[in-house]
Amino acid sequence: MLMDHTIVTLDEMRKKTKQMADTDELCSQHGGKYVEAFCDDHDAICCIECITENHRQCKMVRTLEQASLDIKTRLDPLVYRMNELEKQAVSVVEDRKTNMEDLLKQKKDVLTEVNKTRTDMQRYFETLETKLKEEIAQTHESLSEELQLQAHNFEHIFTNCRKRVLTASVNYGSNRDIFLTAFKLRKQCELYKIYIRSQSENSLRNDYSLHMNEIIKKFTNQIKSMGNVSIEQKSTNIVPSFYKYTRLSDCKYVGQILV
Amino acid sequence: MLMDHTIVTLDEMRKKTKQMADTDELCSQHGGKYVEAFCDDHDAICCIECITENHRQCKMVRTLEQASLDIKTRLDPLVYRMNELEKQAVSVVEDRKTNMEDLLKQKKDVLTEVNKTRTDMQRYFETLETKLKEEIAQTHESLSEELQLQAHNFEHIFTNCRKRVLTASVNYGSNRDIFLTAFKLRKQCELYKIYIRSQSENSLRNDYSLHMNEIIKKFTNQIKSMGNVSIEQKSTNIVPSFYKYTRLSDCKYVGQILV
Ligand SMILES: [Zn+2]
Ligand SMILES: [Zn+2]
Ligand SMILES: [Zn+2]
Ligand SMILES: [Zn+2]
Repeated sequence: MLMDHTIVTLDEMRKKTKQMADTDELCSQHGGKYVEAFCDDHDAICCIECITENHRQCKMVRTLEQASLDIKTRLDPLVYRMNELEKQAVSVVEDRKTNMEDLLKQKKDVLTEVNKTRTDMQRYFETLETKLKEEIAQTHESLSEELQLQAHNFEHIFTNCRKRVLTASVNYGSNRDIFLTAFKLRKQCELYKIYIRSQSENSLRNDYSLHMNEIIKKFTNQIKSMGNVSIEQKSTNIVPSFYKYTRLSDCKYVGQILV
Repeated sequence: MLMDHTIVTLDEMRKKTKQMADTDELCSQHGGKYVEAFCDDHDAICCIECITENHRQCKMVRTLEQASLDIKTRLDPLVYRMNELEKQAVSVVEDRKTNMEDLLKQKKDVLTEVNKTRTDMQRYFETLETKLKEEIAQTHESLSEELQLQAHNFEHIFTNCRKRVLTASVNYGSNRDIFLTAFKLRKQCELYKIYIRSQSENSLRNDYSLHMNEIIKKFTNQIKSMGNVSIEQKSTNIVPSFYKYTRLSDCKYVGQILV
């Protein structure tokens, strides 16, 4: 019952198998002694020393010759069992290999998806950049036009403040000519003054200010991974319930019957 | 007072300037009539018809000859004013050009920053991708190792189910040999069975499952722009307060004194 829960490591298993091979005819407990008997009570092969030490109270101790009578007729269960074990082992190996192949494919798909997500994001950022750049270009174009128009209008005032007209009039004209010219220029100045005053509220200093999207600004601090891959594990039926639930004590009993 | 709030468009201004130029000596109201008088009350040049129609109640209507007496000695304020207007116009033009040049530089800087943000984000996504791919590779490597070990261990069971040993023993050995061989094989089977049972809980079907970061998944739906550029406008002093706050009625008065 205790061994039922014992987990045998592969190393132990190999060691035991090797021990048995080495002790073909020799007792594993008593070096140099040949095995001579079989104890049914312990399901053990014994040398003479084993029997005197451990099997004196046992009820079913027979010589190997007695125990091996008709052995050939009692081998079928062992052969069946070895076949089952072999099938079992092969199916587990195949299942593990299939799972490995599937995982390799899945890994490839996952990497493709990760790559796609990354390139999609990169392309999306390029789209956002193009859009923002277009908006900036548009903003700049209309603001430039406005400023250029303002400059143009004030340039017009400048080129129309014709002091030369007044000078010419003063130098060559009659008082009446000068008066009329001065009158016109004064009226012009008044109009320009009104215009300048009307424009004073529009003559603003303009500066650009870039406001990055808050999520993008915080992105590198908030996003530390693109995601993760988890392994989903499901129980399988490759190891049949017979193997899973049989008790070791039952095994032993079955074993005794087999041989 | 009403005109104080009138905004003169540049077109109107040009039209008026043109009118004045056309009507050098001719009345703008009465085609074909020459201007002959000046009304101080209206600050207007009048033909004979103007006077009879609109200036009969006016107190200060003089002939142009009377009005233009000593005109040369009264031109300084107009010249000063034209100079001021010219300076004003030039400074506004220069200011607008400076602002345009600055905006061009700012636009360049903004575009550089937008570009940098985009490339930074793209590089960051490449970093995230590399990191995730490394994690996937690591997960895959250790899971593959585990599965390979499982396969290897079960392969060992398969290669050790030596049915040939039993067959050889049955064919060539004594009953005693067969008994001992069967005994060993049975013991071996028991050990393997214990091993298989101990491994049954580990023989799981493994599948990868990729979980993308929620923020990245929702990114293209939530982020519709990289940001925006706003124009910050500050009032300037290019149009001096004199122009801004002088009343038109005052202008007119000043104008009358000037000529
Ligand atoms: Zn012994
Ligand atoms: Zn015994
Ligand atoms: Zn007239
Ligand atoms: Zn009048």
